[in-house]
Amino acid sequence: MKTTKPTILVVNDDGVTAPGIKALIEVMKEIGGRIVVVAPDSPQSGMGHAITIGKPLRLDKVDLYEGAEMYSCSGTPVDCVKLAVTRIFKGLKPDLCVSGINHGLNNGINVLYSGTMSAAVEGAIESIPSIGFSLDDYTMQADFSPCAKFIKEIALQVLQNGLPPNTLLNVNFPKTKDIKGIKICRQANAKWAEDYDERLDPYKRPYYWISGVYQVNDNGQDNDSWALDNSYASVVPTQFDMTAYNAIAVLNSWKFNV
Amino acid sequence: MKTTKPTILVVNDDGVTAPGIKALIEVMKEIGGRIVVVAPDSPQSGMGHAITIGKPLRLDKVDLYEGAEMYSCSGTPVDCVKLAVTRIFKGLKPDLCVSGINHGLNNGINVLYSGTMSAAVEGAIESIPSIGFSLDDYTMQADFSPCAKFIKEIALQVLQNGLPPNTLLNVNFPKTKDIKGIKICRQANAKWAEDYDERLDPYKRPYYWISGVYQVNDNGQDNDSWALDNSYASVVPTQFDMTAYNAIAVLNSWKFNV
Repeated sequence: MKTTKPTILVVNDDGVTAPGIKALIEVMKEIGGRIVVVAPDSPQSGMGHAITIGKPLRLDKVDLYEGAEMYSCSGTPVDCVKLAVTRIFKGLKPDLCVSGINHGLNNGINVLYSGTMSAAVEGAIESIPSIGFSLDDYTMQADFSPCAKFIKEIALQVLQNGLPPNTLLNVNFPKTKDIKGIKICRQANAKWAEDYDERLDPYKRPYYWISGVYQVNDNGQDNDSWALDNSYASVVPTQFDMTAYNAIAVLNSWKFNV
Repeated sequence: MKTTKPTILVVNDDGVTAPGIKALIEVMKEIGGRIVVVAPDSPQSGMGHAITIGKPLRLDKVDLYEGAEMYSCSGTPVDCVKLAVTRIFKGLKPDLCVSGINHGLNNGINVLYSGTMSAAVEGAIESIPSIGFSLDDYTMQADFSPCAKFIKEIALQVLQNGLPPNTLLNVNFPKTKDIKGIKICRQANAKWAEDYDERLDPYKRPYYWISGVYQVNDNGQDNDSWALDNSYASVVPTQFDMTAYNAIAVLNSWKFNV
């Protein structure tokens, strides 16, 4: 183990002023040396793995919380990680990348839509041990304090043990003061059943607001939805190789007439 | 097999007027009955799996190409699929969802950044057999004609055989008139080595343009980069369960002191 205190990159998708990132910075200050925060200048929920390629980015130093070197970025959560690695760390990778604490769960299929998780995925692509943290509370008044000791312990374990190659962690917390413990899980089979609220503008032209319900189609007790429903913190090891290896043999059995 | 001609949803990320989607519509008209096109009203490259949640969406009927029912959408590629399923098909799913043809490759890690592939992933989440198509040519003058017979054959095979559950196809074409054939592959281990071009605005404040080179760290001959480099069309079966199953046992061996 290194004897100097670790350098930690902190990102999120709710924006640099969100209470969730403040809570995460406070925990990281207990275990880290240099704490670098690069977060979006406005909320970026649902941005997934988007990057900004058609317009330039701003990266401004801000001075919000003591003990952390902070930057506000005009781009997406993934842009924040890329800019941090390239322009701030300049190739000297941090020891850990943590993202969140997200206001709202990112379990199951939400790993794809979530800017918080996509930032952690980008950290892992950059070979930085990376963890995304999310709490089941969308409000700005969310109480992150019950998560603190779990976040600290998980981060310390990752710093001590490292993570398997090309793997990051997706950590979600239930909304309770009495989190029962940590469950290592798989991603639940779930999806959003969308509905779009159709309204008419003052010129009688329709417009649509996304809405929908989260549908869990999974009876297992080894998935993250089950863990959260039963007051456990869920930890899903997550990868960015999207190959469906089991399907390769199936496709090789097809006869292409071309 | 169904005796009626299939209903096909066509989406992309380069926008409804891009030459690539026109080429894809032409192929789908040869095999489909009802062809529904829902595509972004402006280029959405690099949007990944982003969805629009903070503002409303527009969905306007447009009349661009004969034989296709076409809509222009103000949202992301994934928004296009969600709106199509919810507001156009209203629960009666299409038989096939095709995305592209993208102007530029989406092999390897690009599956995460690509709006084209994310739209196909969203189709698969909606249990629609889905395929993303991309050509190694970023220009608006790209010649899609060598891809046509391969696209038709792959789409017909998917309609005939179906796809394994929770699996879609990521199909990439090399830029050549002599595509040697189809290779079933895994996603190559690759990443973007970013660089950001720093410039000063007229007020002497810095801004950053993304740039970078694509680094393939993979010597295998079973990956999509190898296939494309050797003039084959690559077909990668792709999944949206991001669980790193191999890492579950590793994490269960950790002792959390909490």
